[in-house]
Amino acid sequence: MGRVHSRAYRRLRDHFPETVARPELVIVADASPDRRAEAADVHGYRETTDQWQRVAEHPDVDVVSIAVPNFLHREIAIAAARAGKHLWLEKPCGRVPAETAEIAEEVERAGIHTAVGFNYRYTPAVERARELLAAGAVGTPTHYRGHFLADYASDPRGGRSWRFQEAYGGLGVLGDVMSHAADMACHLLGPIDELSAERAVFVPERPRVSLEASHFDVSEDAALAPVENEDYAASLVRFAGGARGTLEASRVTVGPHVRMAFELHGTEGALAWDFERMNELWRYDRRDPDPGYRRVLSGPGTAEHGRFQPSAGIGLGFDDLKVIEVHRFLEGIVDDEPRAAGLPEAAAVMAVIGAMQRAARTGSRVTV
Amino acid sequence: MGRVHSRAYRRLRDHFPETVARPELVIVADASPDRRAEAADVHGYRETTDQWQRVAEHPDVDVVSIAVPNFLHREIAIAAARAGKHLWLEKPCGRVPAETAEIAEEVERAGIHTAVGFNYRYTPAVERARELLAAGAVGTPTHYRGHFLADYASDPRGGRSWRFQEAYGGLGVLGDVMSHAADMACHLLGPIDELSAERAVFVPERPRVSLEASHFDVSEDAALAPVENEDYAASLVRFAGGARGTLEASRVTVGPHVRMAFELHGTEGALAWDFERMNELWRYDRRDPDPGYRRVLSGPGTAEHGRFQPSAGIGLGFDDLKVIEVHRFLEGIVDDEPRAAGLPEAAAVMAVIGAMQRAARTGSRVTV
Amino acid sequence: MGRVHSRAYRRLRDHFPETVARPELVIVADASPDRRAEAADVHGYRETTDQWQRVAEHPDVDVVSIAVPNFLHREIAIAAARAGKHLWLEKPCGRVPAETAEIAEEVERAGIHTAVGFNYRYTPAVERARELLAAGAVGTPTHYRGHFLADYASDPRGGRSWRFQEAYGGLGVLGDVMSHAADMACHLLGPIDELSAERAVFVPERPRVSLEASHFDVSEDAALAPVENEDYAASLVRFAGGARGTLEASRVTVGPHVRMAFELHGTEGALAWDFERMNELWRYDRRDPDPGYRRVLSGPGTAEHGRFQPSAGIGLGFDDLKVIEVHRFLEGIVDDEPRAAGLPEAAAVMAVIGAMQRAARTGSRVTV
Amino acid sequence: MGRVHSRAYRRLRDHFPETVARPELVIVADASPDRRAEAADVHGYRETTDQWQRVAEHPDVDVVSIAVPNFLHREIAIAAARAGKHLWLEKPCGRVPAETAEIAEEVERAGIHTAVGFNYRYTPAVERARELLAAGAVGTPTHYRGHFLADYASDPRGGRSWRFQEAYGGLGVLGDVMSHAADMACHLLGPIDELSAERAVFVPERPRVSLEASHFDVSEDAALAPVENEDYAASLVRFAGGARGTLEASRVTVGPHVRMAFELHGTEGALAWDFERMNELWRYDRRDPDPGYRRVLSGPGTAEHGRFQPSAGIGLGFDDLKVIEVHRFLEGIVDDEPRAAGLPEAAAVMAVIGAMQRAARTGSRVTV
Ligand SMILES: NC(=O)C1=CN([C@@H]2O[C@H](COP(=O)(O)OP(=O)(O)OC[C@H]3O[C@@H](n4cnc5c(N)ncnc54)[C@H](O)[C@@H]3O)[C@@H](O)[C@H]2O)C=CC1
Ligand SMILES: NC(=O)C1=CN([C@@H]2O[C@H](COP(=O)(O)OP(=O)(O)OC[C@H]3O[C@@H](n4cnc5c(N)ncnc54)[C@H](O)[C@@H]3O)[C@@H](O)[C@H]2O)C=CC1
Ligand SMILES: NC(=O)C1=CN([C@@H]2O[C@H](COP(=O)(O)OP(=O)(O)OC[C@H]3O[C@@H](n4cnc5c(N)ncnc54)[C@H](O)[C@@H]3O)[C@@H](O)[C@H]2O)C=CC1
Ligand SMILES: NC(=O)C1=CN([C@@H]2O[C@H](COP(=O)(O)OP(=O)(O)OC[C@H]3O[C@@H](n4cnc5c(N)ncnc54)[C@H](O)[C@@H]3O)[C@@H](O)[C@H]2O)C=CC1
Repeated sequence: MGRVHSRAYRRLRDHFPETVARPELVIVADASPDRRAEAADVHGYRETTDQWQRVAEHPDVDVVSIAVPNFLHREIAIAAARAGKHLWLEKPCGRVPAETAEIAEEVERAGIHTAVGFNYRYTPAVERARELLAAGAVGTPTHYRGHFLADYASDPRGGRSWRFQEAYGGLGVLGDVMSHAADMACHLLGPIDELSAERAVFVPERPRVSLEASHFDVSEDAALAPVENEDYAASLVRFAGGARGTLEASRVTVGPHVRMAFELHGTEGALAWDFERMNELWRYDRRDPDPGYRRVLSGPGTAEHGRFQPSAGIGLGFDDLKVIEVHRFLEGIVDDEPRAAGLPEAAAVMAVIGAMQRAARTGSRVTV
Repeated sequence: MGRVHSRAYRRLRDHFPETVARPELVIVADASPDRRAEAADVHGYRETTDQWQRVAEHPDVDVVSIAVPNFLHREIAIAAARAGKHLWLEKPCGRVPAETAEIAEEVERAGIHTAVGFNYRYTPAVERARELLAAGAVGTPTHYRGHFLADYASDPRGGRSWRFQEAYGGLGVLGDVMSHAADMACHLLGPIDELSAERAVFVPERPRVSLEASHFDVSEDAALAPVENEDYAASLVRFAGGARGTLEASRVTVGPHVRMAFELHGTEGALAWDFERMNELWRYDRRDPDPGYRRVLSGPGTAEHGRFQPSAGIGLGFDDLKVIEVHRFLEGIVDDEPRAAGLPEAAAVMAVIGAMQRAARTGSRVTV
Repeated sequence: MGRVHSRAYRRLRDHFPETVARPELVIVADASPDRRAEAADVHGYRETTDQWQRVAEHPDVDVVSIAVPNFLHREIAIAAARAGKHLWLEKPCGRVPAETAEIAEEVERAGIHTAVGFNYRYTPAVERARELLAAGAVGTPTHYRGHFLADYASDPRGGRSWRFQEAYGGLGVLGDVMSHAADMACHLLGPIDELSAERAVFVPERPRVSLEASHFDVSEDAALAPVENEDYAASLVRFAGGARGTLEASRVTVGPHVRMAFELHGTEGALAWDFERMNELWRYDRRDPDPGYRRVLSGPGTAEHGRFQPSAGIGLGFDDLKVIEVHRFLEGIVDDEPRAAGLPEAAAVMAVIGAMQRAARTGSRVTV
Repeated sequence: MGRVHSRAYRRLRDHFPETVARPELVIVADASPDRRAEAADVHGYRETTDQWQRVAEHPDVDVVSIAVPNFLHREIAIAAARAGKHLWLEKPCGRVPAETAEIAEEVERAGIHTAVGFNYRYTPAVERARELLAAGAVGTPTHYRGHFLADYASDPRGGRSWRFQEAYGGLGVLGDVMSHAADMACHLLGPIDELSAERAVFVPERPRVSLEASHFDVSEDAALAPVENEDYAASLVRFAGGARGTLEASRVTVGPHVRMAFELHGTEGALAWDFERMNELWRYDRRDPDPGYRRVLSGPGTAEHGRFQPSAGIGLGFDDLKVIEVHRFLEGIVDDEPRAAGLPEAAAVMAVIGAMQRAARTGSRVTV
């Protein structure tokens, strides 16, 4: 049902009151009756259905949000695109890079607008990092470290949900959170050309659970079944612009919880950010009199921070990023001028992910 | 108009869908026509007015939110209380402790429910700290350090808004943010008995601005006018339970932005929290094998965190605290069982603030 | 025997090879035969004795180091001063302020040079903070927070050594570590004029141990005896220059180990330092484009750092501060131009400490 | 001349007074007359020479310290080994892995004891990490991140000293600081089996300087000459025990100064350490009630900390690690039982480094 998407649509005008977009929640599809009831009751959807086709084709619908498990991305996205609906499709946009490419082609053919759930991009601190890079604050970038170290599957008793099965999730952590890490790297430093990679499974078996179950469901006694895709991936990358980087992602890390983070170094300075402290950007400038990493808290002058809070030191939360994402997406539709990361960006990221898959398998540096 | 309050009412059921409370935004009063228009358009208030009396007396209204400058607290709160409305009144609940006491009496007489804007209490990390204290995690508390170091008025060009004038703001930082620091101290360690205090003005004059202007408005050329209440206050306190503490508050600090923070030490451990990293609780236990401060990120098991985000590492923002506050307030009304800090708590805190005022003036340790 | 002093003398020329001072370890007095043997064997003292008088009067001795329990400070210092020896006397220089004053007078009369163990002053990061203050980096100082939160006596089974007895230690934490905190405050912001204070005992009884025992000796079964001086002290201070401050010291804090730290704020910036990370100075400048606290690691250009390590990021340890202290002391003797904090500074600090004692007792703000 | 080695020998018995080793500084060789003079004057060497051969063959010499540029390692080490002297040879022990292997063979043949400058191993926090790993504190290790991000050559005006020339330095950052990072990884998690790698030069030309000049000498006007070895290297590694890792090293990073650091994750916990805060070990245990990273400061119970400082919170400095290193080395000689990392360990590390060189060149995963 896309709880986070639904709330974001409803909160849009609280923070961007001048927008001409006036989202109305028309119809929701979900496999679960409880969630359908919740959608109507809490979010105020006018209609509910268990057939996503009805959403994709509904005449009152202009925009379709797709926040279902990966194996449904392609089918729903293509149907909605063919029906001329704009799409807010969650990453990774299909199970594997080929599916993402297929969706991207269909989107292009349909001439629709899209947004793809690379929400970390919209963090005010990250948008400020982009401005600083463009302004030469770090000089020429030299090397980059990107992580997405998650612990959501670190408990081996966590159920083998769709995420761990090739037929439903497709790739493992590569599609799941490495896609965020790779997107951030390219968003900040431009395209990646060549790379080497590794991947590993650290929890080879998990309790068998129903397809509806989430990876948060912990089970003590269910029979075990094999995990079919990687828990961990790492890559050495070469950016087209000359910088080098390491990317690392894991869904079973013990220690960090959601360490979606980067550190980048250039000839004159450095920048660092970690989603676990999302309102802080660390900045180093070797031209400062006593150089040191500076902890800069987002404030009214930092990208969209002021839309949410009146001063530095009062932090935004994750959901606020989704409000910014939907704002960019809808403004793009209004002006016919894309402002959010959409299927083209997702396809480019998934090409990098596909290269990681090949590199890990062959043990060779590959061209993206 | 209470933007933050309005949003909180509207978001309540997103996070507490089981509540029987179904807030509807009936009528808003604001002195500014623009804000009234915004209230109707963005928040969907059915009616707007420039006469707060109409809100206080409106037959469809059960609950009145009062988020106006301090000099209006008493008058509006008493009128609304007399009309039998439950009140969400912002701290400090009047200009001076005597006004708070007056409101508290009226509230008691009216038998209504109240909430008073001590929002920091509802932070999941803070609620967890309370649980830990109750469970003996730090042993017997020995000493406490509480701060509210804000920079909102650190720019001397910031206008002399109502906050800096006795007739409109009443107390300076003592009522403004020291009330939060004192509330937190008592919330965690119980009542304060005796104290010494200091206060100071660091920016004695500010540009004259209209009463509607905010302290964020910076002015370069307006004539200067005197600041009439303290910028800074500090106090040495004795808790009834035996612990000692220092409290410090400032509105003109350069460095921290909103460092509403505490550190407390007991015979067995310590706890620390800072609103600038509101989703982190630091905890020390001397009985650990290698003792050290532990950075604990709020997660699904931490108080209300799970109502907002599904995992640790995904942070809440400030506005979420207001959603929890309104939930506690309304549940209290539903059950006739108070769950939010209300006027009794505000009156107790303002008695401490009043003692600080006396102690600072006389230079002597005083009894609260 | 002064292990730390002995090592400092011996390491002096490693770090300051150009000095004309050539310390030789002539004679050591210690009550313990084992320590005397160690002094001869490890440090190479030519002679050892159990009579400190022999050191104070030895014809080959120019400089006497006094690192004995407080109750011996006055007697030894005065004897050595009268014999015309320069003195390196550990803080607090006597049991109580009156003893410090007495020693200071004798020192003045004797026309000798002194150093008094305020070693934290010599930290490169602290010396850099002084330079920055002098250069106006924080504008006009407004408020200051100084701590010495130690846990050395946090275990209630720690023995009641000389430190906890009035006859031997004199003051408790006020003389012991508050003297460091007060010295740092005055060193950075100038003299303190007026203050209020509190003190408390949190561990009222401790196991009886012999006078030679250290507070590190933990005892499970010895009989308990009363602690005779304060474990904790806090003060609100007014600097002559107009700034305000809070000072807090404890020997029984659980959590920090040796948090000798300050944070200071001015109209344009802020500085912060903590001995637990002694090689880092945190600096905030509100005139920076994206202001934030900057973590500056000491490096070759930071005061004496380069005498010890060739680059930033390679840290100094505590003992290095003692090498700097002895260097300043001896250079002062060589040039007859004091460069280390000596008895005049100790007497000034102990006057502040004496005022804290009075303020705590009377519950009133007092003049230093 | 080995300033740091010389001091370490002289300070040995201050911290390990019970050792039977009694180092005497017999003879020093250095190419620079000034340094020879300093060696005699400050460290008290009995003899000085400009011929290292005299040291290697001196009849009173039992142990030879070799802290000269890499191109001299092999020749001196082999001569000294043949003369039957025990060796303290600085990493990387030759210019390239083949030279290390050659020295290692000679050392084995000669039956002498060695130590090789992997000083970070001896940090109390690191030794504690090893103990915790052995005790199962993190469960089964899964992944590791190791860095040595240095800025010593980040200024492009820094001279092209011997380090940047193949004939004199051999490898670039791979031999220089990646050897430390690789040693730490293997020291903690055991041998590395297979790896992929990248390397890069970010500052292709530097001012031509004399062979004696250091990389700290900055030059504005000297002619530029090519840098002949890598500034940056990164590797994806597979440990024989099953864990995966990323290693990254740079000598031109802007931001960190000496970030020699690791983070490791296992099935039950995590550990992290950074030399820039060398006295802190961060530890995570998912079995804790409120799990979080815990900042553990080294204290008397942490490996050799108590040899240097009496309590936690009082930090050691870099030089102290060299005192521990020499202690382990000399105790190994005394007992004929190696306790320090020596040539066998250096040869193993350099085999890993050699594999990185091959992997980077071929773009393929290689077996060590
Ligand atoms: N941008 C981001 O940071 C995040 C993105 N995601 C993405 O969102 C997607 C969904 O992930 P989760 O919400 O964790 O999955 P989930 O397993 O919780 O399922 C999401 C919803 O899809 C519904 N659903 C399942 N089959 C359906 C069908 N046939 N028709 C209609 N509804 C159906 C479920 O009932 C559920 O309400 C994934 O593609 C994931 O990659 C997830 C979390 C964060
Ligand atoms: N709980 C917390 O953390 C916070 C509490 N507050 C409290 O909220 C209150 C308001 O503070 P701010 O919003 O900063 O003040 P503000 O100066 O922005 O004014 C608030 C609103 O009151 C309206 N107003 C003024 N006079 C009015 C009248 N006669 N009738 C109706 N509306 C009128 C203004 O137009 C404005 O919309 C204060 O008491 C303050 O202490 C403020 C910020 C944070
Ligand atoms: N600057 C700083 O940061 C520090 C200063 N100190 C100061 O150093 C002084 C000594 O403190 P600790 O070393 O902790 O005390 P301690 O109790 O360890 O005694 C120090 C030494 O004095 C010797 N001693 C005792 N009576 C003697 C006598 N009659 N004649 C000769 N030697 C005698 C003891 O045998 C011992 O070797 C105190 O005044 C303390 O305030 C202590 C620690 C740190
Ligand atoms: N373990 C560690 O963390 C560190 C290890 N090192 C290692 O130490 C070694 C030396 O490095 P640096 O001290 O930075 O080099 P450097 O360039 O400062 O030279 C060291 C000394 O060797 C002397 N020397 C040069 N040629 C000589 C000759 N023919 N005979 C006698 N003496 C000669 C120089 O005069 C100088 O005193 C290198 O192998 C380096 O890898 C360096 C720094 C840190």
